[in-house]
Amino acid sequence: MAHPTPAEAWMARALELAQRGLYTTHPNPRVGCVLVKHGRLVGQGYHARAGEPHAEVNALHEAGEEARGATAYVTLEPCSHQGRTGPCAVALIEAGVARVVVAMEDPNPEVAGRGVALLRDAGIEVRVGVMAAQARALNPGFILRMDHGRPFVRLKMAMSLDGRTAMSSGESQWITGPEARRQVQRLRARSSAVLTGVESVIFDNSRLTVRADQLGLDDAATIAARQPLRVIVDSHLRLPEAAACLTEPGRTLVVAVEGAEEERVERLTRAGAEVLTLPAGSEGRVDLEALLRHLAEVEQANEVLLETGATLAGAMLDAGLVDEMQLFVAPTLLGGDARPLFQLAGIETMAHQRGLDILDIRAVGQDWRITARPKRRIKEGEE
Amino acid sequence: MAHPTPAEAWMARALELAQRGLYTTHPNPRVGCVLVKHGRLVGQGYHARAGEPHAEVNALHEAGEEARGATAYVTLEPCSHQGRTGPCAVALIEAGVARVVVAMEDPNPEVAGRGVALLRDAGIEVRVGVMAAQARALNPGFILRMDHGRPFVRLKMAMSLDGRTAMSSGESQWITGPEARRQVQRLRARSSAVLTGVESVIFDNSRLTVRADQLGLDDAATIAARQPLRVIVDSHLRLPEAAACLTEPGRTLVVAVEGAEEERVERLTRAGAEVLTLPAGSEGRVDLEALLRHLAEVEQANEVLLETGATLAGAMLDAGLVDEMQLFVAPTLLGGDARPLFQLAGIETMAHQRGLDILDIRAVGQDWRITARPKRRIKEGEE
Repeated sequence: MAHPTPAEAWMARALELAQRGLYTTHPNPRVGCVLVKHGRLVGQGYHARAGEPHAEVNALHEAGEEARGATAYVTLEPCSHQGRTGPCAVALIEAGVARVVVAMEDPNPEVAGRGVALLRDAGIEVRVGVMAAQARALNPGFILRMDHGRPFVRLKMAMSLDGRTAMSSGESQWITGPEARRQVQRLRARSSAVLTGVESVIFDNSRLTVRADQLGLDDAATIAARQPLRVIVDSHLRLPEAAACLTEPGRTLVVAVEGAEEERVERLTRAGAEVLTLPAGSEGRVDLEALLRHLAEVEQANEVLLETGATLAGAMLDAGLVDEMQLFVAPTLLGGDARPLFQLAGIETMAHQRGLDILDIRAVGQDWRITARPKRRIKEGEE
Repeated sequence: MAHPTPAEAWMARALELAQRGLYTTHPNPRVGCVLVKHGRLVGQGYHARAGEPHAEVNALHEAGEEARGATAYVTLEPCSHQGRTGPCAVALIEAGVARVVVAMEDPNPEVAGRGVALLRDAGIEVRVGVMAAQARALNPGFILRMDHGRPFVRLKMAMSLDGRTAMSSGESQWITGPEARRQVQRLRARSSAVLTGVESVIFDNSRLTVRADQLGLDDAATIAARQPLRVIVDSHLRLPEAAACLTEPGRTLVVAVEGAEEERVERLTRAGAEVLTLPAGSEGRVDLEALLRHLAEVEQANEVLLETGATLAGAMLDAGLVDEMQLFVAPTLLGGDARPLFQLAGIETMAHQRGLDILDIRAVGQDWRITARPKRRIKEGEE
């Protein structure tokens, strides 16, 4: 990489600040801002939590009078609309900021260039596109939700080196070690929702919660105060009322196909679940694309962590609904009779194999973490 | 790592020289030697091929009169016995070398300290153990054969990210890319023998040869002039006479259990195979431990490359006969119906899982190469 320009160096600082909101801004995007005057930092801020001030306002507050004539570096276009807080573009104008450098336009249709236009109309010089790729990487879910009405789906699986997730009996506890489990906790904590199938819940009775003591982060208690929505695909409402996740803090959304028995709906509702019914997709099961649309539109879910078994994981892959894979690989072999990673439909010859781009492989304690992205499959009718 | 001492720096040079014999010294070990006088290199050599001069003799030849009073750095103890060439210890003494630094003792029982003793008796100062671990890593097979009468077995497999080696139909060509295949060719080229099962040969009709044009090495033609022994485990002699490997340069050893039909033995012999019969091990199949002993004792095999399917690979792992695994992982998914990596016996609970030490993971073209070592399993009756 070439040596960063001064603008890139300040934007990198703003990106670092934005990162501090990684676990807490849901459903808002993570945003950071620095104010610089005569080559000196005069204010910095980030957005911490919905309903609290935006990054720009925090930075302006820190800078005080020093903001006048300063350059603002912001990781996302300042907002132009009156949300729970006042429009940031107006705040920057009123503070007398001279210049604004923006990493990327806000994909939110309520902003989408209007923030930049407001600033320019006020005579402020605006530059857009500095470290845009890094800024996009901060908010993959928010961007996808705004652009396409669905969340970013991150599939997490823990596997043996021979691609097995559990014994054929279902026994699966502790394939990977404590450091990998800590990282999974952090993946949950940054997600708006955790998505799983009823089979996985029945087998593992998993709680699907963020546990403060397992995050290994300073502000763990604050982070765990927001539990991601637990979403269980349960087409025919087989979830036991005694499922551990139903009594945990936070909400559990059980998703069945339309026409589910009213008595079961009531029983699960009494046990602590919310039940959503959706039209059936293929093979009489929940339409996964409709579910993701619901999570984006109704729950404002940006990032969804998919933690499940071979069947639902395979169906999500088959439907092209997985944006990223996080595979935690334990240095162990479970053999050919153990449970496979994915059940995929219609792979009969090598020509049908599903390509991946491997983005990263790194050691995580005794285990390895592979980050991959399914290659986009060209559907018929598309070019 | 701490800064290397001068002795380590010279030994590192000798190790590099030894490496040049990687593909060609079978059944001899790879050995390198440098001669240093007043801090200056005066001669260097390595062992290239059985029957040709040893490393020390090549280095002495290059140094000429300069050898007198020099220090010799040798990666393996100089030999004391009259093999196909004269004893190197004597050559060093006669050349007037003042000091000898040896990385490791020769495990060959015909040497085993006698070379060092000869040198010391002649008044030469000898130091043993400089960079011993690196020297051992050069010759894992030779050392294992000398110490334990069996070769070093390196298991190579090409797999998808979900741990699959082929479609259920057996189709498996080109899971991994050209760079991975080049590395497999080099693994074959360094091996004394390539070991496979009859099923794999029937499915893939693989030639199991080293192909000069696929090695990507300068001296590829010289290397491919020695083809590793092809060893096919074929308990009941099902190998077709038309198998491609039978007409390739080099030898093919077909290993059956005792009592195999005489007519089939003759038929395969006529087709170009050598047939070895061994007592049956478990389930009436070839006793794999006996086979490895045979390869070490009769064929002087140092390194054996195991290239096979889930059944034989699993049986070798189950028997504790795999010393190293080289897994080439393609960025693709084949799904739960495709062929598994290993069939392992007696894994019913997570407690039976087989632990591995992962030594290295690196990118190889679009694929990834994982080097692992099965953890030693404590057998009953051992401590």
